[in-house]
Amino acid sequence: MNGGALTVLGIDPGTAATGYGVVVSRGQELSAICGGVITTGAGEPLERRLAAIFAQIGDLLDEHSPQAIAVEDIFFGRNVRTAFAVGQARGVVLGAAGLRDTPCFTYTPQAIKLAVCGTGQAPKDQVQRMVAALLGLAAPPEPDHAADALAVAICHANHAGGVRSEAQTLH
Amino acid sequence: MNGGALTVLGIDPGTAATGYGVVVSRGQELSAICGGVITTGAGEPLERRLAAIFAQIGDLLDEHSPQAIAVEDIFFGRNVRTAFAVGQARGVVLGAAGLRDTPCFTYTPQAIKLAVCGTGQAPKDQVQRMVAALLGLAAPPEPDHAADALAVAICHANHAGGVRSEAQTLH
Repeated sequence: MNGGALTVLGIDPGTAATGYGVVVSRGQELSAICGGVITTGAGEPLERRLAAIFAQIGDLLDEHSPQAIAVEDIFFGRNVRTAFAVGQARGVVLGAAGLRDTPCFTYTPQAIKLAVCGTGQAPKDQVQRMVAALLGLAAPPEPDHAADALAVAICHANHAGGVRSEAQTLH
Repeated sequence: MNGGALTVLGIDPGTAATGYGVVVSRGQELSAICGGVITTGAGEPLERRLAAIFAQIGDLLDEHSPQAIAVEDIFFGRNVRTAFAVGQARGVVLGAAGLRDTPCFTYTPQAIKLAVCGTGQAPKDQVQRMVAALLGLAAPPEPDHAADALAVAICHANHAGGVRSEAQTLH
């Protein structure tokens, strides 16, 4: 940890593919440390897939020691089955964070687009181009899930009004 | 592990309260080893609550070494926000199981009622009374979440056609 620097791990959770991206903010400057996708095999039992995501998120946390995790909130228009599946993947991400006392913050898709593009209605390709521009990357990050993870990390690094994870509706 | 005995950990996942119950089946005989509820504080950050559930499920798995975990599937009528929250709790339960290679099975609410009461439409109090009768308990188990967890464990122990966790719709 450098003095004054903020390291954020952004996550776009999913069972088949969980995007991740580590962003460091120093003053007005943002940079990407790494980004990628944790993929799990469709033929594997769900519990093994979730355990793999849990273990790899733990490795990222141990390697980069971020001060915060930023995660995209579920889109309300999603169906119940999808919400349940994404929730499971997000559960292991937050569980791995909680074991290490890393605070987690939630951002709506609109808040992320607003923070990255200046408008909550920006299309996907504009988000990707702006992520590249803000992080000084030569090309938009790929695949999509990695770009989305970097976008939510940028959103948090720029103090875009995330919701601390306890404020969500719980069951 | 006794020869011929099947030990099942049933789980009713939720962020605020996760019910659990351990059932052992030997031939036609069922018995309850333990049952209860893992509760987490509403004032705690979500990631800490999920980490607590993860750790306590891990303790139950290490203590009882069940051959299987049985979990109730989400009810389709639930709203997206609830499905997402329950999914997160279920994610850490399955993640803890996957790290130990304990296979997980999913049962619909209807399948559980059918297995325990003989009808998929049984009301909640009938399920609780039947759980007590099948396990030889003097009174219906309390609270609700523990009874529901024991019910899904009974359902699995009686080979009621659960779905292996990989067969679910994934994102």
